[in-house]
Amino acid sequence: MIILFGVFIRYDEESDPHWVEHKKAHNISSDIENDFYFRYPSFQDVHVMIFVGFGFLMTFLKRYSFGAVGFNFLIAAFGLQWALLMQGWFHSLDYNDGKIKIGVENLINADFCVAGCLIAYGAVLGKVSPVQLMVLTLFGITLFAVEEYIILNLIHARDAGGSMVIHTFGGYYGLSVSWMLYRPNLDQSSRLQGSVYHSDVFAMIGTLFLWMFWPSFNSAITDHGDGQHRAAINTYLALASTVLTTMAISSLFQKHGKLDMVHIQNSTLAGGVAVGTAAEFMLMPYGSLIVGFCCGIISTLGYIYLTPFMEKHLKIQDTCGIHNLHAMPGLIGGIVGAITAAAASESVYGHEGLINTFDFEGAYKNMPPTKQGGHQAAGICVAVCFGIGGGIIVGCILRLPIWGDPADDNCFDDEPYWEVGGSSLVFS
Amino acid sequence: MIILFGVFIRYDEESDPHWVEHKKAHNISSDIENDFYFRYPSFQDVHVMIFVGFGFLMTFLKRYSFGAVGFNFLIAAFGLQWALLMQGWFHSLDYNDGKIKIGVENLINADFCVAGCLIAYGAVLGKVSPVQLMVLTLFGITLFAVEEYIILNLIHARDAGGSMVIHTFGGYYGLSVSWMLYRPNLDQSSRLQGSVYHSDVFAMIGTLFLWMFWPSFNSAITDHGDGQHRAAINTYLALASTVLTTMAISSLFQKHGKLDMVHIQNSTLAGGVAVGTAAEFMLMPYGSLIVGFCCGIISTLGYIYLTPFMEKHLKIQDTCGIHNLHAMPGLIGGIVGAITAAAASESVYGHEGLINTFDFEGAYKNMPPTKQGGHQAAGICVAVCFGIGGGIIVGCILRLPIWGDPADDNCFDDEPYWEVGGSSLVFS
Amino acid sequence: MIILFGVFIRYDEESDPHWVEHKKAHNISSDIENDFYFRYPSFQDVHVMIFVGFGFLMTFLKRYSFGAVGFNFLIAAFGLQWALLMQGWFHSLDYNDGKIKIGVENLINADFCVAGCLIAYGAVLGKVSPVQLMVLTLFGITLFAVEEYIILNLIHARDAGGSMVIHTFGGYYGLSVSWMLYRPNLDQSSRLQGSVYHSDVFAMIGTLFLWMFWPSFNSAITDHGDGQHRAAINTYLALASTVLTTMAISSLFQKHGKLDMVHIQNSTLAGGVAVGTAAEFMLMPYGSLIVGFCCGIISTLGYIYLTPFMEKHLKIQDTCGIHNLHAMPGLIGGIVGAITAAAASESVYGHEGLINTFDFEGAYKNMPPTKQGGHQAAGICVAVCFGIGGGIIVGCILRLPIWGDPADDNCFDDEPYWEVGGSSLVFS
Repeated sequence: MIILFGVFIRYDEESDPHWVEHKKAHNISSDIENDFYFRYPSFQDVHVMIFVGFGFLMTFLKRYSFGAVGFNFLIAAFGLQWALLMQGWFHSLDYNDGKIKIGVENLINADFCVAGCLIAYGAVLGKVSPVQLMVLTLFGITLFAVEEYIILNLIHARDAGGSMVIHTFGGYYGLSVSWMLYRPNLDQSSRLQGSVYHSDVFAMIGTLFLWMFWPSFNSAITDHGDGQHRAAINTYLALASTVLTTMAISSLFQKHGKLDMVHIQNSTLAGGVAVGTAAEFMLMPYGSLIVGFCCGIISTLGYIYLTPFMEKHLKIQDTCGIHNLHAMPGLIGGIVGAITAAAASESVYGHEGLINTFDFEGAYKNMPPTKQGGHQAAGICVAVCFGIGGGIIVGCILRLPIWGDPADDNCFDDEPYWEVGGSSLVFS
Repeated sequence: MIILFGVFIRYDEESDPHWVEHKKAHNISSDIENDFYFRYPSFQDVHVMIFVGFGFLMTFLKRYSFGAVGFNFLIAAFGLQWALLMQGWFHSLDYNDGKIKIGVENLINADFCVAGCLIAYGAVLGKVSPVQLMVLTLFGITLFAVEEYIILNLIHARDAGGSMVIHTFGGYYGLSVSWMLYRPNLDQSSRLQGSVYHSDVFAMIGTLFLWMFWPSFNSAITDHGDGQHRAAINTYLALASTVLTTMAISSLFQKHGKLDMVHIQNSTLAGGVAVGTAAEFMLMPYGSLIVGFCCGIISTLGYIYLTPFMEKHLKIQDTCGIHNLHAMPGLIGGIVGAITAAAASESVYGHEGLINTFDFEGAYKNMPPTKQGGHQAAGICVAVCFGIGGGIIVGCILRLPIWGDPADDNCFDDEPYWEVGGSSLVFS
Repeated sequence: MIILFGVFIRYDEESDPHWVEHKKAHNISSDIENDFYFRYPSFQDVHVMIFVGFGFLMTFLKRYSFGAVGFNFLIAAFGLQWALLMQGWFHSLDYNDGKIKIGVENLINADFCVAGCLIAYGAVLGKVSPVQLMVLTLFGITLFAVEEYIILNLIHARDAGGSMVIHTFGGYYGLSVSWMLYRPNLDQSSRLQGSVYHSDVFAMIGTLFLWMFWPSFNSAITDHGDGQHRAAINTYLALASTVLTTMAISSLFQKHGKLDMVHIQNSTLAGGVAVGTAAEFMLMPYGSLIVGFCCGIISTLGYIYLTPFMEKHLKIQDTCGIHNLHAMPGLIGGIVGAITAAAASESVYGHEGLINTFDFEGAYKNMPPTKQGGHQAAGICVAVCFGIGGGIIVGCILRLPIWGDPADDNCFDDEPYWEVGGSSLVFS
């Protein structure tokens, strides 16, 4: 890794000391126009989502909190470095000197890339070894970089918040891996598969940090100015709407009208996923509410009916229910994005606004918005194919009996991989 | 909600794709001057305070952590949407086309509005049903929007951090509701009214995030430039001072000189409340320390003497002690603001500085600062009246026997409203 | 404190209402160029590290979570005020009117100053009384301000992330104090010296917030523009690299290849410490990875071999292992900084870039980089001397039998200083 970084990675012109001269050459009046100040607050919010958000969201299991937070940390730290190389390599195809120039935008993109793998981790949580997770991440990041390059650069689809690129891909990637690693005797670990009171409270830390910072996630790499502003507002509204629907559905479909923490921890976030692609478009505030409303229903019902069905009949054991939180809402997000793009017009966006928002420049000058809608739809297909295809291949690799995966009655337990000392009985 | 948003809510000019043209028309040189970049980091800090801060602060009860975090989440997500409509409706009175234009400042204001209701929730924590909380929020937001419009627009009082508008109103609103919902037999739940060791640690997460981000709260909607800068510094100093006084008083007035977590969790925040109104004024660094010093004493003594007194003699059961953390410090903050405003002079603020800070423009041109002090004082009265009056009315509504409130021996227990499964005995 | 603030502390020109005139006089085009907007997001991140990061990192002990979070809060709030005075006093030597002008940069510096004392607290965690901590802080802040002034202003060393000024000083200060306060019979408290399952999860909150926001820490007071940008990137890479090495070493050197939470909680952060001084230099991305790689190894091995050795043979009881997390990586950071500075050249930095990065202005105009390397090395020596010397003196003072320190069998227990009520048995 060090050697690869030594050969390929350099600072970009905004993080290089030649910035002083760059500023003069480009007639930039102030240091505050360095991309750092446009993106750094959002970058830190995304960073919190990756490490605290995903990490703590998965602590809900009574005896797998170390693994949830710790392996999440491991995957993310490893994935970030690999993603900088992989994504950078594709972006560097435009440059002359073959070097990868990195700045704050690359760090955000690396975080996004890692998010895809952490979503996949959610499906296999508690059932794989750390070595398997490293393999999962290595291939996941690589697949992600290829898929992203195809969708964003070759197909020229737009995907600010990554509904397709991150969530759809990550979701189906994880589900396929989990399908390949199906364990028929997993019920031997059923005593450990639930939560206890305060492991649920820990998980709420993850939920809340994901929920709060999702507007930063969806706006982190959008265009400066109105694009970031609008993406944040749309995401905020969709999320607020999802919370209400999730609580209502959870209460309606449970016996005695009680709320279920699993739904509150997960489905409340579905709106943020589903508004990802269209966040920077003119989705309109009421459109965001509608998207959030629908996703709250679908995601909660998914937890109640679909996850048990998939486990029983499709042999897909989805520990965190990523199908309901990422895969389905990601698909919806892609579709919403395609429709919103196809419906775009100069009367709504203004002449320059339309060009800026959809990046109708260069080879795509004078592209009609309806055609852009088709490109968006093509993007969804690519994401699903890469997710399922990649997942099946990587799943096959992970079935090799060399990775030290836990026995069926040791799943969802920190004991095999962590020093838990004499305190291990406190939770039981 | 979706229909109302569809009819009324639109993007403002800084989150609309016409921003490109707006920039040119107003001769704005860079995207970084979009209001988004001035306000978004503070907005996210405020957002964290609302969801993690208030949510976790209330997890101190041993068996009501789900309710604390979960219902806080519900109130906030519902309240945000309603607040955008209510506050927007009043602000839109100045526009021609009857549409509500939203941008990041409106999102912050909605968070502020929700804060008022979450304060009120603190008084009734554990004693009401989720449906009652929705009603409490619906009316609370509406009252807040009216009260805010009167104080800020009609009376032309300044209240950057909302000592009057948020804390005084929210505090008395909650206390009045709690007074109307008095339960004489609440001691049947006394076994559940305390904390356990790690529920107190969870609550410290809330305390710390509130404490750290309070400078962002008080500076979030102040004037760009020196106003935000000064508000952050003043709040920071007041809070630092309060921590020391709280620890000293807590240790002095307890037997054996031991510290009490209730005081550390709550009273350490009182300085931020009390410096809210005057945060953007020339309170001076030592002035902030004095305010923090006094509030630490008053708030801690309030927990030791006043809360038991109110419960016993005034029939006000105040679960979180919001009278000590919000109502009293809010009043002090209003008074400090009135005094500081009345004492303002051109020699301290400079000619333009005075006009900017107090917004002496339009109808208020040439207004003497002493008169502004009177307006501030009038603002305090309005906040108290709305709080007490509104709380009594809403309390009456909530006494109707249709809302499914918990029985006296089921208070402070998650059991009636949440699936807690077999793990429910871990904490007892 | 209030009197001292009243006499000495004023707002600086960017937080004063005369900013309007200042802007005109200095031809500043927009409010966004107020230093507030360059620094405030990083300031808040640093603030989170100080209060949540350090506070929760130390909650790992099973019965000392109140003390960890609570006394951390006390030290920080007290230290901030004292640091504003002490640091401000030294910086005010350049002014004419003897007043200390404060703005957001001073708040960050005060947080840095406090960090030094909190590091020292890590060494004596659980073995001292709150009064002793106040004394430790009072002297620690004062020593820090002197040491910082010597290193940064007199010697003209650069230390953006404080590897020398904060970590080396704070580490050796704490270790020396702990050496002076050696308790031969500490094993009487050994039943309380471990962690339990969820106290380790609480500690991970601290670890993650420190890890995530370390790029903000190292870039918070660097030069606007490319300096902040580069510092963030370097820190980010070093930290990512450290996580991988730590996990690998932890697993290799434990029996059965199990991971140890102590290493994950602490050693993963060592890379951020070690890249502090050189963060704003042209360390290059691969250089950051190398630094992180080495530190992960050294720090983890330190926990396995060095801490037990120091406790047994050198009579230094280091509760949190600050020698492995702060003292050694700080030294490495200082050395890396000296080498990087000595190797600087105009071909890499550009003419103006070199001057800006190393501040070669005024008396230091035309200073050769190799000489700057020597100044950096001198800085390391000063930090170590102040740490050890100051720690021994303050340790002597703290040995006086007037401070109410806990008995040997009461160490690592919240009972002596906190109301823990009937819940005290839950963790045992």
